[in-house]
Amino acid sequence: MTVKTIDELQQLITKKINGFCDKNGEGRIFQPVNYIMQLGGKRIRPALSLMSANLFTDELDDAIYPAIAFEVFHNFTLMHDDIMDNAPLRRGKPTVHEKWDTNTAILSGDAMMIQAYQLLIKTEPSKVIPLMRLFNQTALEVCIGQQMDMDFEQKKQVTVQEYEEMIRLKTSVLLASAMQSGALIAGADDVAQKNIYDFGIHLGLAFQLLDDYLDTFGEEDQTGKRRGGDILSDKKTLLMIRAYEKAGPEEMKVLNTYIGNSSIQEEEKINSVLSVYEKLKVADDLKEKVLHHHDTALQCLHQINVDDFRKTELKSISNMLLGRKG
Amino acid sequence: MTVKTIDELQQLITKKINGFCDKNGEGRIFQPVNYIMQLGGKRIRPALSLMSANLFTDELDDAIYPAIAFEVFHNFTLMHDDIMDNAPLRRGKPTVHEKWDTNTAILSGDAMMIQAYQLLIKTEPSKVIPLMRLFNQTALEVCIGQQMDMDFEQKKQVTVQEYEEMIRLKTSVLLASAMQSGALIAGADDVAQKNIYDFGIHLGLAFQLLDDYLDTFGEEDQTGKRRGGDILSDKKTLLMIRAYEKAGPEEMKVLNTYIGNSSIQEEEKINSVLSVYEKLKVADDLKEKVLHHHDTALQCLHQINVDDFRKTELKSISNMLLGRKG
Repeated sequence: MTVKTIDELQQLITKKINGFCDKNGEGRIFQPVNYIMQLGGKRIRPALSLMSANLFTDELDDAIYPAIAFEVFHNFTLMHDDIMDNAPLRRGKPTVHEKWDTNTAILSGDAMMIQAYQLLIKTEPSKVIPLMRLFNQTALEVCIGQQMDMDFEQKKQVTVQEYEEMIRLKTSVLLASAMQSGALIAGADDVAQKNIYDFGIHLGLAFQLLDDYLDTFGEEDQTGKRRGGDILSDKKTLLMIRAYEKAGPEEMKVLNTYIGNSSIQEEEKINSVLSVYEKLKVADDLKEKVLHHHDTALQCLHQINVDDFRKTELKSISNMLLGRKG
Repeated sequence: MTVKTIDELQQLITKKINGFCDKNGEGRIFQPVNYIMQLGGKRIRPALSLMSANLFTDELDDAIYPAIAFEVFHNFTLMHDDIMDNAPLRRGKPTVHEKWDTNTAILSGDAMMIQAYQLLIKTEPSKVIPLMRLFNQTALEVCIGQQMDMDFEQKKQVTVQEYEEMIRLKTSVLLASAMQSGALIAGADDVAQKNIYDFGIHLGLAFQLLDDYLDTFGEEDQTGKRRGGDILSDKKTLLMIRAYEKAGPEEMKVLNTYIGNSSIQEEEKINSVLSVYEKLKVADDLKEKVLHHHDTALQCLHQINVDDFRKTELKSISNMLLGRKG
């Protein structure tokens, strides 16, 4: 009885992703697929999927291709989201629509989604239908989350509840579904599958909220991106939503002066909004939510009826994902 | 023992598509899905899919949702292709990226592809895996066909063989796969499935070639679109490819003057290129190919070992599709 370490899993995942790219070859439509797949990233989704399988079985062969399917699907969403967000860079490299063009990013993205389905069904045949149902439902939710995110740009006000629902759909359900898939393939019962799914939801929420925190308060050499990007683009993050909720007349005046105003010098905008955030202690509100979701995630894991040693890696990766960013 | 008529099938298909749209409701992301699904069209893919099932069984319940899946997938490709081709109109109405915007057309298209997979697996469980394999392979080929079509715009020369390969991938494989799916679900053996697939390939090739013919030689009140559109946009159709192959110095001079030249008055361009086409009799080359593919399709159908009365509707729809346009 052994549980694979995160390093062992990462090696396995890298090997399978390399194999996937090799098989794609040099065909015109697959070049951008291989490009984005090889930009790196932490491969969190397949790692969590395999760890979830590993809760219930030592045998991960049936779980590996579906785990990669989630990574391929995730990268497909990045390719299309980058077009929609007009993003020039992804992990420090030109996005596909910048390096090639928009049509290429649309079409290679479409091909990638199909490839995700090809990988998904490479598993034990009796698991294909429940796996497909879960994956389809999740994939649709991810699209709806992206739609909500885009709609927020046009909305004057967004509530905390709406914001959490958006990040649940855009980020968390895919983590959760990757995890449930691993458990499903490993033969977990419905209750355990539900617990592992909920673990993924809360881990995803905590993870995304911390990402928002770091965008505004993180050190640039740690995050690898410019501090204050969300403020500059007027993004309705939890920090901004809470700031509007808590603002008195004075802070409201500052927010109304700077938010939605792109004619102001960038440093001035960032620093002014930051000073409001600090005054209103909105970072504390965010951190409280992160802790809450992290705790809830661990409670879900606790309820899964398997030996404790099997949970070690999942606990440690969630601490790493959250602690590392805390 | 009964075989459904095309009218009965169309009614069934319309009912199921309406049900699909009703279930989508008014959600922001589904409005463009319902819009494009309700622009109409001949519903050829689901009709052919159900007719193929009907070759082998009277019981079409298991075949209906997968048949609709092909129509949804087809409309997804239209939504994304229209972005890539910068097309303003689809069936006389504004395209989705015109009526909404490009981001909406990308995202609702993505959602539509997922919905196609949701419909595809609504069938007899033992058929899901072979169906998924066939569908995935086909969907990827359709993307590769679209890539080839876009690449042709940048290429100086395209051969007849390359052109036929492009339309095989972009148009025929989806017809063929819709038909094979129907047969597969109805329990046809591998040989019969192969024959029905090949029927679809040749029907699709004949159909697309005739579409090219009509664009250039059809009557506008019959086709509903402007005559000569392919000439104006310098599209490398079989007619143009054959014209370049057959041209003597004089015709070559005309072609080189007009093709790739958008600064010339439109009527002059169309009439000059048309006169070359007529002189070189390239329409005859095209018609010969249409006849060849139609004949080959019928031979494939002939080889399928079921009662002749079961083949009536398939023969009549292929005559209708081709004859109507001849």
